[in-house]
Amino acid sequence: MPSQPSRELTPIDNPHPGRNYEVTCDTPEFTCVCPMTGQPDFATVTIAYVPGLKIVELKSLKLYLWSFRNEGAFHEDVTNQILNDLVAALDPVSMTVTTDWLVRGGIHTTVKVSHPQ
Amino acid sequence: MPSQPSRELTPIDNPHPGRNYEVTCDTPEFTCVCPMTGQPDFATVTIAYVPGLKIVELKSLKLYLWSFRNEGAFHEDVTNQILNDLVAALDPVSMTVTTDWLVRGGIHTTVKVSHPQ
Amino acid sequence: MPSQPSRELTPIDNPHPGRNYEVTCDTPEFTCVCPMTGQPDFATVTIAYVPGLKIVELKSLKLYLWSFRNEGAFHEDVTNQILNDLVAALDPVSMTVTTDWLVRGGIHTTVKVSHPQ
Amino acid sequence: MPSQPSRELTPIDNPHPGRNYEVTCDTPEFTCVCPMTGQPDFATVTIAYVPGLKIVELKSLKLYLWSFRNEGAFHEDVTNQILNDLVAALDPVSMTVTTDWLVRGGIHTTVKVSHPQ
Amino acid sequence: MPSQPSRELTPIDNPHPGRNYEVTCDTPEFTCVCPMTGQPDFATVTIAYVPGLKIVELKSLKLYLWSFRNEGAFHEDVTNQILNDLVAALDPVSMTVTTDWLVRGGIHTTVKVSHPQ
Amino acid sequence: MPSQPSRELTPIDNPHPGRNYEVTCDTPEFTCVCPMTGQPDFATVTIAYVPGLKIVELKSLKLYLWSFRNEGAFHEDVTNQILNDLVAALDPVSMTVTTDWLVRGGIHTTVKVSHPQ
Amino acid sequence: MPSQPSRELTPIDNPHPGRNYEVTCDTPEFTCVCPMTGQPDFATVTIAYVPGLKIVELKSLKLYLWSFRNEGAFHEDVTNQILNDLVAALDPVSMTVTTDWLVRGGIHTTVKVSHPQ
Amino acid sequence: MPSQPSRELTPIDNPHPGRNYEVTCDTPEFTCVCPMTGQPDFATVTIAYVPGLKIVELKSLKLYLWSFRNEGAFHEDVTNQILNDLVAALDPVSMTVTTDWLVRGGIHTTVKVSHPQ
Amino acid sequence: MPSQPSRELTPIDNPHPGRNYEVTCDTPEFTCVCPMTGQPDFATVTIAYVPGLKIVELKSLKLYLWSFRNEGAFHEDVTNQILNDLVAALDPVSMTVTTDWLVRGGIHTTVKVSHPQ
Amino acid sequence: MPSQPSRELTPIDNPHPGRNYEVTCDTPEFTCVCPMTGQPDFATVTIAYVPGLKIVELKSLKLYLWSFRNEGAFHEDVTNQILNDLVAALDPVSMTVTTDWLVRGGIHTTVKVSHPQ
Repeated sequence: MPSQPSRELTPIDNPHPGRNYEVTCDTPEFTCVCPMTGQPDFATVTIAYVPGLKIVELKSLKLYLWSFRNEGAFHEDVTNQILNDLVAALDPVSMTVTTDWLVRGGIHTTVKVSHPQ
Repeated sequence: MPSQPSRELTPIDNPHPGRNYEVTCDTPEFTCVCPMTGQPDFATVTIAYVPGLKIVELKSLKLYLWSFRNEGAFHEDVTNQILNDLVAALDPVSMTVTTDWLVRGGIHTTVKVSHPQ
Repeated sequence: MPSQPSRELTPIDNPHPGRNYEVTCDTPEFTCVCPMTGQPDFATVTIAYVPGLKIVELKSLKLYLWSFRNEGAFHEDVTNQILNDLVAALDPVSMTVTTDWLVRGGIHTTVKVSHPQ
Repeated sequence: MPSQPSRELTPIDNPHPGRNYEVTCDTPEFTCVCPMTGQPDFATVTIAYVPGLKIVELKSLKLYLWSFRNEGAFHEDVTNQILNDLVAALDPVSMTVTTDWLVRGGIHTTVKVSHPQ
Repeated sequence: MPSQPSRELTPIDNPHPGRNYEVTCDTPEFTCVCPMTGQPDFATVTIAYVPGLKIVELKSLKLYLWSFRNEGAFHEDVTNQILNDLVAALDPVSMTVTTDWLVRGGIHTTVKVSHPQ
Repeated sequence: MPSQPSRELTPIDNPHPGRNYEVTCDTPEFTCVCPMTGQPDFATVTIAYVPGLKIVELKSLKLYLWSFRNEGAFHEDVTNQILNDLVAALDPVSMTVTTDWLVRGGIHTTVKVSHPQ
Repeated sequence: MPSQPSRELTPIDNPHPGRNYEVTCDTPEFTCVCPMTGQPDFATVTIAYVPGLKIVELKSLKLYLWSFRNEGAFHEDVTNQILNDLVAALDPVSMTVTTDWLVRGGIHTTVKVSHPQ
Repeated sequence: MPSQPSRELTPIDNPHPGRNYEVTCDTPEFTCVCPMTGQPDFATVTIAYVPGLKIVELKSLKLYLWSFRNEGAFHEDVTNQILNDLVAALDPVSMTVTTDWLVRGGIHTTVKVSHPQ
Repeated sequence: MPSQPSRELTPIDNPHPGRNYEVTCDTPEFTCVCPMTGQPDFATVTIAYVPGLKIVELKSLKLYLWSFRNEGAFHEDVTNQILNDLVAALDPVSMTVTTDWLVRGGIHTTVKVSHPQ
Repeated sequence: MPSQPSRELTPIDNPHPGRNYEVTCDTPEFTCVCPMTGQPDFATVTIAYVPGLKIVELKSLKLYLWSFRNEGAFHEDVTNQILNDLVAALDPVSMTVTTDWLVRGGIHTTVKVSHPQ
């Protein structure tokens, strides 16, 4: 049970690969570090996708999101990176990743990235 | 009144088969068992459909959902199975089944499956 | 003022018949009786329409909905019947009737019927 | 299953009579008739009590509330009557009955009655 | 049915005068005129009371509140006046009148007056 | 400052006439009189439009809406009239007027009218 | 990780036994069986307490609540039983257990039990 | 109409000085400047009081709050200052001033000051 | 750290210029001055855009919005101006600016401007 | 600006030490590590206090809460520790610290600690 953060996303077989359906995973438990000030940032991450041959194993998704905890990451960049990593691991029919960040400088920011565009 | 869980879905005649209209049934009273840990999972199930010649009898729907109580079921798989069983029983013009699961590992998951795609 | 429930829907002249516009009437004050158990059911009824030459007089609509109070009615059937009666009385350009029923057997049901389809 | 409305409230033994604890039952499914106009009224009824030696059996409570469906009843009067009937049947340590009525004449009314005062 | 605004509040007999209980009437349909600018003001009025020998007849309450429609009235003054009129008509055990006014000059105001203090 | 209700709507120059953009004005401060009973009605009015060469001056809009205070007006009719008056004064690219009325006879009504259709 | 439901509640040492403070644990993941019909019931359970020398280990609390999954239990009885078991295991300064049950027969029920009374 | 910000609070006669009642004024339109960074801060201000012989004139209250727009002010200090100024101008029976500030550094702050303590 | 309001918007390189994705920034911290009365106005500003080669640096956006604090600005005009300035600085694929203003004269106004139209 | 997490809480002089008033600071930006699994936990922290001679400087409070980011901490223990540290630094008249934790094992936990008890 001493689990570790990991960038490995574990794909598992889609039990119904012949049908296009939607899976959505969201969590308020995402934190990384501002590359300019070194201070923590916090976001809710939402991953919505139509799986291809693979779906994501939930525990590996949790460890993957944990792996950003000490990484410096700009809002726009990390959202694109999460999408790219998930697309590489799962090859989904389509996927949208949205990040919704707690207020900085009085401004609330969200970023939404989709594949394919 | 000593009713039993049952996989039998009772179709009854659609009283207005000549018109396409929408029926939605939702319930927070769905529970099954995680196939990996054996622990209970909980979901809200929403069934939205345009009936063909048959609509579903509500009591049989209740007993059908009850029948998953002690079954091991992955989120994605059981949602597809519920859709498949209802489509087989009712032959609807169209149907969407959505499951919305309580948090596991800090992640909230929903699955949405439609027929026809 | 001793008004009575009535199936008569009073059409009145649309004051702006040359323009398509939308009227929506909704009320949580609908009750009828379950045809199988004889027990009361309760619903919110929403009627949205684009009038033709006639609009519905509100008091007659109230008495019309009251008239179901002691009638046995399945959810799907009564929603279609309300739509049919209103279409017959008003000949609208279009109309949608939605019923949203209080929970029975742990299941919450809505029915939505439109004219023309 | 052909149940009937009934003024009989069935008391059942309190399984923990030696401890003061609170039970609250609420339902939006209450309707009666305005004694002046004969038109239907609708209310949400909330019953909160500390039981004595008896608690109320839920099905009998449902049939009891149903029994007002065709009765003429002023808001203030019927709320007191429900309290009196429940106190007579259960002899609770304390009880509060609240009724919350749908709008009449643009005015929203609630009535709250307690025993003992 | 051609009713008129009226300052007459009609008391009717409290059906349960031997018990202290609470009645609350609230309505968003109150409007009067600003004594300084002549422009309309709007408020939600809430009347909560423990009746003595009399309760207020709802239609007369509606006509009473209507009677302020063309009257100039400061927020603090009219709230006190409504309380005074109701206390004079009903002689309640206790009563609180609250007015909640739509925004003027960017400021939202409420006034709450009780009898006895 | 002794302003008066007025049917005059003051158009002012659109500061960006070369671009289609949306302006929405809404207010809960609309009241008129029921033509059948003489009793007050209350509504929230929402005006959404894409301006042409003119936008509406807000104070004149306020005085315009005030001018209905003592007018008898059916829900459907007055909504059309407000749209017609605003279209005549502003010649917008498009406009939608929605009125959302407080409950009468247990029924909540909204009316939505657009130009052009 | 193949955990099992268990009635064993694991007490662990209160890290600040010299101070009265409040801990609240709530979960919507409680289900048991109606002793009369055999059908599943669902509730949200809230446990609020001021610990004495012990606090409850969260995993054991989860397994404890799981242990009711196939047990027949009346609403009032099971709430008292949960309180009794927790008081026996933890000997808290004070504790309140509340259960909030999904609708049965159109009626929503909550039960709230405290120790000491 | 070219009004100016002003620290003058205009007291006007309480129309019902013989009775203790509550007036509450709140507005989200308060802004001042951080004394350390010179950057704007924003707050909702709520003033609740039981008037003595005087109530506050609303327009003067608006101009008073406006007067802080270019002033440097710590959260705790300005809240006390507003209370002190209002108490000096009105001599109320009692008063509470609450400020609720938009997030700074990820932290949301409120300050609540009362007279008398 | 003694920052100053500034009309300079700092563009920074889009880390993923080859993909169309959406960024949304919103803040309730916008205030300017009414050009007719000199009194403060308050709005929430929302900026949603698909970046081209540049994204906006958040601190410069904050200082930019601050720069309107003492400027006279009509609702419709300032919304267009903010869009124009951001489009000039960032050359986005598309952008929508929405302003949502606190109530003036009882009327709540929003303005929504997009590029390209 | 390269700030660092720090356990140092900076007290600053209370500008109104002669009056008891309440300050509340809350933030959803708290994270620490589960001492048993090493996995991140997340909480909203609320600090409400009546200051004595000192109030807390907000930036130091932010850095203080940040300092728990990589620390192992049980829910009950860390809440007591935060209270103890703040009481040691500020010597407040009274203080309550509440932590509200994201779901673990299906259970939502809050802890509330006060000084003096």
